Amino acid sequence: MKLYEYTMAPNPRRVRIFLAEKGVEIDTVQVDIPSGENLAAEFRAINPRSLLPTLVLDDGTVIDESVAICRYIEELHPEPPLMGTDARSKAVIESAQRHMEWDGLLSVAEAFRNANPAFRDRGISGSEGVPAIEALVDRGRASTLRFFAALNDTLGESEYVAGDTFSIADITAFCVVDFAKWIQIRAGDEHPHLNRWYAEVKARPSAQA
Amino acid sequence: MKLYEYTMAPNPRRVRIFLAEKGVEIDTVQVDIPSGENLAAEFRAINPRSLLPTLVLDDGTVIDESVAICRYIEELHPEPPLMGTDARSKAVIESAQRHMEWDGLLSVAEAFRNANPAFRDRGISGSEGVPAIEALVDRGRASTLRFFAALNDTLGESEYVAGDTFSIADITAFCVVDFAKWIQIRAGDEHPHLNRWYAEVKARPSAQA
Repeated sequence: MKLYEYTMAPNPRRVRIFLAEKGVEIDTVQVDIPSGENLAAEFRAINPRSLLPTLVLDDGTVIDESVAICRYIEELHPEPPLMGTDARSKAVIESAQRHMEWDGLLSVAEAFRNANPAFRDRGISGSEGVPAIEALVDRGRASTLRFFAALNDTLGESEYVAGDTFSIADITAFCVVDFAKWIQIRAGDEHPHLNRWYAEVKARPSAQA
Repeated sequence: MKLYEYTMAPNPRRVRIFLAEKGVEIDTVQVDIPSGENLAAEFRAINPRSLLPTLVLDDGTVIDESVAICRYIEELHPEPPLMGTDARSKAVIESAQRHMEWDGLLSVAEAFRNANPAFRDRGISGSEGVPAIEALVDRGRASTLRFFAALNDTLGESEYVAGDTFSIADITAFCVVDFAKWIQIRAGDEHPHLNRWYAEVKARPSAQA
C-alpha cells in the first residue's frame, strides 16, 4: 500500500491526521503540486485525475479521494471510530463532514486557487488550460467568512463539529481553518466557540501529522 | 421520518432513486427551489443551509446531504447493497461516487446556475446575495464535456461506474447526465460506453422515481 501525497496541501493533511488518530502508518511518496508534478505523465498514469492524496493498494486498486481513503482505513481499523458507529451517527457525521467540504474547503480553495499565480492556468484542481477567474477570489473569501460564522455557531451547540465525539468532520474543519490562513482569514474574537474547539483539536498529537 | 425535497432538482432525485432501489418509502414534503421557498424562514428553521433534500428523523435529527441520507438508509436497509460490502468495495464506490459529484454534478451546476435568471443572485446553492459569475457558464460547460469523456472511458472499462455492480455512483452519474440536458449537453456517438450504460440504468424501474 502506498500513499501519494503532498505535505503542504490541505487534502493530504486530512488523511495524515486521520491515520495518526488511528495509529496507522502507510509508506508515502511526495508529489509536488505547485510545480505540476501531479500533472505529469508519470503521475497521471497512476491517477488520471491528477489529484492528491491517492492511495494505491497492493492489488493495484487506486482510491483517490480523501474521504474514500479514510473510509478504507476506518473499515480495516474501526478503533477509534471517526466515521460513526450506527446508522444515525454515521449519517450525522457524513453530513457534517460534507458541510466542511462544500461550505469550507471549496470556499477557501476557490479564493486561494484563483489568486495564486502558480494556478493561473489551473483553475480546477488536477486541470490544465482552465484559466483562473478573478471574481472567484472575492466570492471564495465571502463564502469563507460565512463558513467561519456557521462553524462558530455549530461549535456553540456541540463540543465537536458533528456532536459530542471527535470525528472526521473535525479533521476536515481543522484543515480548512488552517488552509484559510493562506487567504489571510483567521478566527477572531467574534468566534469564541470556534477558538475553543480549535485549541482543543490543535492540542491533539495528530494535529502535527 | 420526513424527506423535504423538490421533484425537479437533481439532488433529491438521487435520493429518490436510491430509495426506490431499496424499496423504502418515506413521506415527502415539496419545497420549491426556483421560487425560493427553500430560502424562506420556515424552511431555514428546519435546515439553516436551505438545501434539499433534507431528511428529518423522528427524534428531530436533521440530515441534509444526499449521500448522508443514502448512508442512513443503507445502514438500516443493507439489501441490496449500493455503497459496498467490504473495505475495498466501500472505498472504491465512495471514490467513484465523489468523482461523479466533484467532476460531474458541480460542473453542470456551475453552468446551469450561473446562466439561469432565477439564480442571478443565488450563485451558490442555498445562498442569497451571491451574484452569478458569467465566466462560470463556459467553465462549467467545458468541465461537463471533459466529464462526459472521462465517464465514457470509465464505462468502457467496467459495466458500472464503480466496477461490476450497480451502486450509488451510478445513481449520481445518471442524475448528472440527465441534469446536463438542462445545459444542452447530451451524450453522442462519441460516447458509446456511456450510451450503453445509460440505456441500462434508464431501464431500471428506479429511474422513474
